[in-house]
Amino acid sequence: MRLSRYFLPTLKENPAEAQIVSHRLMLRSGMIRQEAAGIYAWLPLGFRVLQNIEQIVREEMDRAGAIELLMPTLQLADLWRESGRYDAYGPEMLRIKDRHERELLYGPTNEEMITEIFRSYVKSYRNLPVNLYHTQWKFRDEQRPRFGVMRGREFLMKDAYSFDLDEAGARLSYNRMFVAYLRIFARLGLKAIPMRAETGPIGGDLSHEFIILAETGESGVFIDKNVLDLPVPGEDVDYDGDLTPIIKQWTDLYAATEDVHDAERFAREVPEERRVATRGIEVGQIFYFGTKYSQAMKAVVSGPDGVERPVHGGSYGVGVSRLVGGIIEASHDDNGIIWPEGVAPFKVGLVNLKVGDAEADAACNELYEKLTKAGVSVLYDDTDERAGAKFSNMDLIGLPWQLVVGPRGLKSGVVELKNRATGERIELSPEAALNKLTN
Amino acid sequence: MRLSRYFLPTLKENPAEAQIVSHRLMLRSGMIRQEAAGIYAWLPLGFRVLQNIEQIVREEMDRAGAIELLMPTLQLADLWRESGRYDAYGPEMLRIKDRHERELLYGPTNEEMITEIFRSYVKSYRNLPVNLYHTQWKFRDEQRPRFGVMRGREFLMKDAYSFDLDEAGARLSYNRMFVAYLRIFARLGLKAIPMRAETGPIGGDLSHEFIILAETGESGVFIDKNVLDLPVPGEDVDYDGDLTPIIKQWTDLYAATEDVHDAERFAREVPEERRVATRGIEVGQIFYFGTKYSQAMKAVVSGPDGVERPVHGGSYGVGVSRLVGGIIEASHDDNGIIWPEGVAPFKVGLVNLKVGDAEADAACNELYEKLTKAGVSVLYDDTDERAGAKFSNMDLIGLPWQLVVGPRGLKSGVVELKNRATGERIELSPEAALNKLTN
Repeated sequence: MRLSRYFLPTLKENPAEAQIVSHRLMLRSGMIRQEAAGIYAWLPLGFRVLQNIEQIVREEMDRAGAIELLMPTLQLADLWRESGRYDAYGPEMLRIKDRHERELLYGPTNEEMITEIFRSYVKSYRNLPVNLYHTQWKFRDEQRPRFGVMRGREFLMKDAYSFDLDEAGARLSYNRMFVAYLRIFARLGLKAIPMRAETGPIGGDLSHEFIILAETGESGVFIDKNVLDLPVPGEDVDYDGDLTPIIKQWTDLYAATEDVHDAERFAREVPEERRVATRGIEVGQIFYFGTKYSQAMKAVVSGPDGVERPVHGGSYGVGVSRLVGGIIEASHDDNGIIWPEGVAPFKVGLVNLKVGDAEADAACNELYEKLTKAGVSVLYDDTDERAGAKFSNMDLIGLPWQLVVGPRGLKSGVVELKNRATGERIELSPEAALNKLTN
Repeated sequence: MRLSRYFLPTLKENPAEAQIVSHRLMLRSGMIRQEAAGIYAWLPLGFRVLQNIEQIVREEMDRAGAIELLMPTLQLADLWRESGRYDAYGPEMLRIKDRHERELLYGPTNEEMITEIFRSYVKSYRNLPVNLYHTQWKFRDEQRPRFGVMRGREFLMKDAYSFDLDEAGARLSYNRMFVAYLRIFARLGLKAIPMRAETGPIGGDLSHEFIILAETGESGVFIDKNVLDLPVPGEDVDYDGDLTPIIKQWTDLYAATEDVHDAERFAREVPEERRVATRGIEVGQIFYFGTKYSQAMKAVVSGPDGVERPVHGGSYGVGVSRLVGGIIEASHDDNGIIWPEGVAPFKVGLVNLKVGDAEADAACNELYEKLTKAGVSVLYDDTDERAGAKFSNMDLIGLPWQLVVGPRGLKSGVVELKNRATGERIELSPEAALNKLTN
C-alpha cells in the first residue's frame, strides 16, 4: 500500500479523552474513531489488525474441530424469555422495538440462539459432539463505556458453543477449547495465562479466564513465575487425543486474579522467589455450564439407550476487538505501538527519504514490488513529508520492520533495516534486505 | 470437511413458508435459519458462500484502489439530522434508545457517517481522491420482509464512498466502480447488466443498477441481446487509465428495467431479432450524488487555489447477502443449487458409496487428504446413509464436482466424476480425477 493513496489520519497531539495508553495510541495512529460513546469506526489501519486477529482465531477454532456459522446481531426477546435471562440481564441489554412493536434486542451473547438452532436440528447422540462458533458484533450497554475498545459497547466477539451427551463429553470439549485458546493467544504474540474464574451471568460451575499480563491491566493477578515458561501446544496437537496432561500442566501452577486470590495458598505453594504480583487483562473466558440452557429450552437428544436427555453445554469467548487494545497495552513503548508480527497491519514500513530523487524512487519501487509479489505486506511512505516525521510516524504505528532508503545510502549500495521491537538497525544491500524480509 | 463432523441440517420436505426457489433451496440445503421475520442465521454451508462472495468483492474493490475500513452497525440519530434524512427516512429506519435515552439507529446505509469521518481528517485536495468502503450488516425495517435473504431486514452490504474535488474527478471515481462491478459479478459467475436507474433516497442525478437475469426476477427488463456478449475487463485493467471506452461499450446498447423502459426507443434502436424481454434481480447500485451530503454536513476541502469547497461524492453498494439468493435464482435446476465455482461452499463433494469397506475408505481418505493438501475444498460424505440419499443431497447442495467412490469401481481401478452443472459423468482413475480437480 502506498501511503499517498492510503487513508491514515494520524494525530500529532495526545487526545485528551483517552485515559489509557492503548486508547491514546489507537487514536493517534489513526486506527479508530469514536462515533458514539463506546461505539467505534475501525479506520483502515485498525481494521487490518482486527481482521488479522479474527483470522488467527478462526484458524485455531477450525483446527480444534469447531464449525463456523454466523448468527444475526438482533434477536427476539421471546428467545431470552425461554431461558429466563430477558428480565435477569438488566440495563446492559439494548432492548429494541421494531415498526410492528415486536420486541427485539441487540445480542450481548448467543447461548439462547445457538441452543434454539441446535434443538431444531439435532435429535440424537449420534450427531454429537458438535461445537459451533461465530465472530459477530455484540452490544452491551455499559453504564460508563471507557478505555476505547477495551470497554466499548459495540464490540466484536468470537463465541463458540459446544454440545455433548454428558458431562464427561462436555469436559473433553472444554479441554479442546482450553488448548485452542493457549494456541490463539500465543499466535497473537501474547503470554496469556488461564486462571480459574467465577462464572457470573453465563452460569455453570467451571470456568477459566485467559489473562494477559500488562502493567496497565484492569485487575491484580498473582502467579507462580514458572507459569510464564510453560510450553504452548504445537499445531500438530491431537484434539482427538488425551489433552489432560496439557490442562494439568497449565492449571497445577498457581495463577489467580485478585477476586479469587488465596494469599495463604500462594505463600504455601509458591516459593518466595517465584511469587509474582502484577496486573492483567482478560482477553478470553471459557465456561462449562452443563444443562442450564438445554433444560430451560428443551434441547434434548436421545442417548444410546433411546432415552431423551438435555445436552451438556459450554461456551467459549474471545474478545476480538478488545484484544486490539490488549495487545497494545502489553506491547508498546514511549514512541508508539510495537505490533507482534502475527497481527501487524503491515509487516514492513518502507521509508523513502527523498521522494523525487530518481535513484531513491527507483530503489523503493523495486523493493515495494518485490516484497508485495513475495506476499509480504508493505506500507510504502512515498509522501513528501520530511524524514523525521516519517520516522516518528513509523514508530507510532509500530510495524515490525522499517526499511529506510535514501540517496546517500544507495550511493554506497546500502539501505537500513530497523527492528521496531529491539530498535536494532543494520545497514545491508537491498537484496540482503529482501532476503531477510521474505524468509 | 468430513460430513460426519459437519453441521449440515438439510431438509427432505419443501418448507411451506418459502415462496421463491432460492429461499426454498437455502432452507432445504441447511444454509440459513430464520430467527425472526427477515432476520437469518447463516448456518455453516450458507456462511461459506457468504464469505466467498464477500472476499471476491473485497479483492475487486482493493484492485480498484478503494480502501477498506469498518463502520459500526449503530449510529447517532444526530448525525442523520445533519443531512436531514433522520425524519425523511420513514419507518424502515430502526430507531433505538439506549439506557441513557440517547437516540441511536441501526444503520441502513452510511453516507452520513463516512462523510463525518472524511470531514474530520481531510482538509486538502492533495489527499483526494479517496474511496472508502466496508462490508457490514445493515438493517431496514421492511414492512413485509419476504423471499428469504432476497428481501431481509438484517442484511450484509458492501458500500463504498468516493470523495473528489469536483464533478470531473467524481465521474472518474464512478467509472472505476462501474468497471469494478463488472468484474465482481463476472467472478461470481453472473451475467450482470448495468442499467440506468433512478436515484431514490440516496439522491443525485446519475445512477446505474446492476441487474442479473433470472426468470424469477423481481422486475421486467428489456435488453439488446448483444449486451450479453460484451467482454468483461480483465484483472489487468488500468484503473488509473481511461475507462470511458469500457463504460461507453456497456452503456451504448439498450438495457432498461420496466420502470424506465422506453418502448419506442427500444423498437427504434434494437433490431427485432435482438430484442429480449425478460426478468432481472438488482444486485448492486452505484450513485453519483455530487455535493448533497458534503454541503449539508460541511465536508469541505481547499482546492489548489486555496478556496474551500464541498467535495463531490458517490456511493456504491453490493448486496452481499442478497447475492446468495440471487445466484441461486440464476443457477439451479429441479434437483437443487448449481454453484458457480467462485462462490461454491466446497469445490468437490466426495461420496463414499460404502463406508466401512476397507478399500473404499482407504481410497476416499487418500483422495480427501490429497485434495485438501492441494488447497481444494472438499466435503467428504463419510456417513452411512444409502447411496441414493447421498446423491440427492449432493445435487441439492450443488457443489461443482461430485467424486463418487465405491468398491465396484475401485475393483476396475476407477472412480466417477460428475459435473453438477452439465450432469456429465466420466469414469477415470483416482489419479486422473485428482489431476483434473487440482488443475
